[in-house]
Amino acid sequence: MTQNQNRRILLASRPTGWPEPANFRLVTEAIPAPGAKEVLVRALWLSVDPYMRGRMSAAKSYTKPVEVGEVMTGGVVGQVVTSLHPAFRPGEIVEGSLGWQDYAVAEASLLRKIDPGLAPIQTAVGILGMPGMTAYFAFLEVCQPKAGDTVVVSGAAGAVGQIVGQIGKINGCRVVGIAGDDGKLAHLKRDCGFDATINYKTSNDLPAAVTAACPNGVDVYFDNVGGAVSEAVFNSLAFKARIVICGQISQYNLDKPDLGPRNLRYMLVNRARMEGFLVWDWRDRYPEAIRRLAGWIKDGRIKYSEHVAEGLEKTPEAFIAMLRGANLGKALVKVADPA
Amino acid sequence: MTQNQNRRILLASRPTGWPEPANFRLVTEAIPAPGAKEVLVRALWLSVDPYMRGRMSAAKSYTKPVEVGEVMTGGVVGQVVTSLHPAFRPGEIVEGSLGWQDYAVAEASLLRKIDPGLAPIQTAVGILGMPGMTAYFAFLEVCQPKAGDTVVVSGAAGAVGQIVGQIGKINGCRVVGIAGDDGKLAHLKRDCGFDATINYKTSNDLPAAVTAACPNGVDVYFDNVGGAVSEAVFNSLAFKARIVICGQISQYNLDKPDLGPRNLRYMLVNRARMEGFLVWDWRDRYPEAIRRLAGWIKDGRIKYSEHVAEGLEKTPEAFIAMLRGANLGKALVKVADPA
Repeated sequence: MTQNQNRRILLASRPTGWPEPANFRLVTEAIPAPGAKEVLVRALWLSVDPYMRGRMSAAKSYTKPVEVGEVMTGGVVGQVVTSLHPAFRPGEIVEGSLGWQDYAVAEASLLRKIDPGLAPIQTAVGILGMPGMTAYFAFLEVCQPKAGDTVVVSGAAGAVGQIVGQIGKINGCRVVGIAGDDGKLAHLKRDCGFDATINYKTSNDLPAAVTAACPNGVDVYFDNVGGAVSEAVFNSLAFKARIVICGQISQYNLDKPDLGPRNLRYMLVNRARMEGFLVWDWRDRYPEAIRRLAGWIKDGRIKYSEHVAEGLEKTPEAFIAMLRGANLGKALVKVADPA
Repeated sequence: MTQNQNRRILLASRPTGWPEPANFRLVTEAIPAPGAKEVLVRALWLSVDPYMRGRMSAAKSYTKPVEVGEVMTGGVVGQVVTSLHPAFRPGEIVEGSLGWQDYAVAEASLLRKIDPGLAPIQTAVGILGMPGMTAYFAFLEVCQPKAGDTVVVSGAAGAVGQIVGQIGKINGCRVVGIAGDDGKLAHLKRDCGFDATINYKTSNDLPAAVTAACPNGVDVYFDNVGGAVSEAVFNSLAFKARIVICGQISQYNLDKPDLGPRNLRYMLVNRARMEGFLVWDWRDRYPEAIRRLAGWIKDGRIKYSEHVAEGLEKTPEAFIAMLRGANLGKALVKVADPA
């Protein structure tokens, strides 16, 4: 696996609708050299996540898009090759937003040092990284679950959804997961302790299925997908329901808008609260969440699963497959083994 | 105006789409007699409000619907005729949900005594009643406005909207009102201190009009109407925007759903918060709001306007006209003068 070149995957063009392999371009360049106080990192694991679809578009968002010709953005777990900063030494494992490439130079302040003794290092972009932080803070802080609440999670088999459901069980909630594949749903019930599941692809009356699964209404709705799935859930909200909007993956690849009733009467009738969430806003409290999640993993109270593709060059197809729901749990690309 | 019969307006049939006069029936019955601890009240003013449209439907809501053949529900300012309860004496002015009728018998606990020295008595169903309480608590408590915030109010010329805008000005906000009539908009700017206004009926690009009126984005959106107007506002939300859903009048009379994009991405991108509001939840704090609003009226810091129809029998058409937006300010029906 030794290389002396840096393979990089660039955004070649902005997609309209679903991204395709042709929207990406693999180039090979020289390995960059770190400047003063910088660190050269070799990628071991790349994370592919739904938010990256937003970065491929020029539409206004919470951060600037990737420009055509730039390397695709993304979280990376890597190993320090060379460090010109005293806080990092060669061989150490780090995590950072280093993009889809074998090697990256980064400012030390943008790297997080990973303890390989805590959990497998790739969890630093999974349950002990962005998806885990999202599940922890969006669910516990925004949704404020109480024991006995009925919690519905959309995108339940994804990296975030699986963890939300299990944190819900730890907090004494009744957890209902929605996903699009019976195998995923079986996993959620068998391995993650979900109380009930709904297959949104095969249900022929999704609002009725939610009502049946939630006879006392939906106290908490953790939304990763949006669209028709959310509309079905909104139909069954309980009094003082709390909704967190973490993702809208059903909407990211549409070339024309998905239409539904514009009526927000369900908010009023139930005095519901809905909030949009971005994990970065909670960065000051990541250590708390990492400590607790790592404890729950160690105790066997939380399980996580990974969906791994091998080889940097496979990243575009792994990303597209994740957008289409092929993954169970965290979608990752393994790039190299640690030296 | 002396009568010895009780005229009552009943729900004759449930409307599909817009209500029509034929959905109501005027009947004349004997004046009821109060039982032990009850009070007989003669109506002086009836309130007509958007929420009544919901009560005409059988759909699930926050309270039970009016049944066909029952008297229409509604807030009334009236005068005590006979009292079998020690807390009320003949001649006193009271407010309660007594329905569309000349006379009603009520439990004393459901009546609120009105001080005629505070403001004209009909304000007990207006600025010092349900619409004023809605404006006060939904705006100040749910939206948490700060000086410098840009506040957008839909249904701005209605009973609630006018007051919200003026409370916004008192709190140092920049206030933008949306309504459907240039005369109303002129009133909002001239008499209520609104900084900018938008006519949603004549604008040919409503999202662009909101963006132009709110160059720094919308910090607070007070929604009385829903539908396309809200969609335009959502397009311009600022970071950490707060949205309160108080009404969805644009949706109440549709015979098929009004469709729009189902994408809630604007919530996520802006980390916005949306809450549904029902004034009854705040009833324990009405005295605080009444005291402050009455003070602001006395100081000349808040103006309110009334749109008055004369005669109980005119109530159905006054109600329908209000739903169609004919009113500027609080829509009322004057039934009788105090004895």
